Amino acid sequence: MQQSLFDFIEQYIILTEEEKKCITDLDIFRSVKKGTLLLSEGQCSRSSIFVLKGLIRTFYIVDGEEKTTEFYAEMEGISPPCVLSGLPSELYISCVEDAMISVSDPGMESEVFRKFPRFESLCRILSEQLLSKNQCNFDTYKTSSPEQRYLHLLKNRSDLLNRVPQHQLASYLGIKPQSLSRLRARLVKKKK
Amino acid sequence: MQQSLFDFIEQYIILTEEEKKCITDLDIFRSVKKGTLLLSEGQCSRSSIFVLKGLIRTFYIVDGEEKTTEFYAEMEGISPPCVLSGLPSELYISCVEDAMISVSDPGMESEVFRKFPRFESLCRILSEQLLSKNQCNFDTYKTSSPEQRYLHLLKNRSDLLNRVPQHQLASYLGIKPQSLSRLRARLVKKKK
Repeated sequence: MQQSLFDFIEQYIILTEEEKKCITDLDIFRSVKKGTLLLSEGQCSRSSIFVLKGLIRTFYIVDGEEKTTEFYAEMEGISPPCVLSGLPSELYISCVEDAMISVSDPGMESEVFRKFPRFESLCRILSEQLLSKNQCNFDTYKTSSPEQRYLHLLKNRSDLLNRVPQHQLASYLGIKPQSLSRLRARLVKKKK
Repeated sequence: MQQSLFDFIEQYIILTEEEKKCITDLDIFRSVKKGTLLLSEGQCSRSSIFVLKGLIRTFYIVDGEEKTTEFYAEMEGISPPCVLSGLPSELYISCVEDAMISVSDPGMESEVFRKFPRFESLCRILSEQLLSKNQCNFDTYKTSSPEQRYLHLLKNRSDLLNRVPQHQLASYLGIKPQSLSRLRARLVKKKK
């Protein structure tokens, strides 16, 4: 399982055997079943999650209703707000598919940065990239209609259409499941 | 002007005289007038902006209409997507008020990181904090109604209500100016 993480890191820096051993020794790899809740509201957690295989989903429960905010697939990671704030989580994280993940915490990261400072440099670069991607996604969401959001998804993350239940997808797009069905029907009609 | 930047950094690390001199020598401080466009669609820019005083705004022009996505006030910074992508910008950045800003680019940053590695550590921490904040803002936007978004703004960034024209504020909340007026009137009525 760790090989996929090494492959991901090696897009940026070639790992030495010593660095690989350090990562392996951290014992951060977990196999989790579909439906598993990795984080729940009220929980205090210091765990950041990186997806090696499978799909996880973040959501909130607002007035008894699940509001899906994001999906994280292969080579995507989430550090929930509670990790930095130290406050009980408002966010839920669950597995949409059976998944293989790595789970780390700030203590572990400090230890690795101390041993291998270039990992901190890598994390700085990855954080800046993620920040930029996140900013773009937020901007796209804000400046688009639901139909444009759906077309954007179709173009950029079409894998989600087959991997995610319709009601979660609708919630992710900020619309009701019935609106998503109508939107799809309208687009099929336009194509003909 | 640089003192405010030093004060901000010194919330995290105490600067040496050598480090302060290095920052001063970078010649990154600019004074800009209200209304100045700091970035326009189509422009290739490598500049990240940090606001020392004043207020700047990011927006897109969609079908001839300005869509405001964010405001950055004192001690907030923006690295527009074009800095990392190298592609022409789709984003505009303009000054809502007369402002004092610092402007840096990746080359400058590398140079500073090389001389003072602990600045890279600081940037990693700041990026992670920003990422978390951005994620929370995105989640709040997605899971809230316009009224909830307005109340959230009132609670967390009430300064914007007096600093920003109404049509920009409405756009930022994802609604029409008339809807913002109605929303406000409704809330005043509720209070009575």
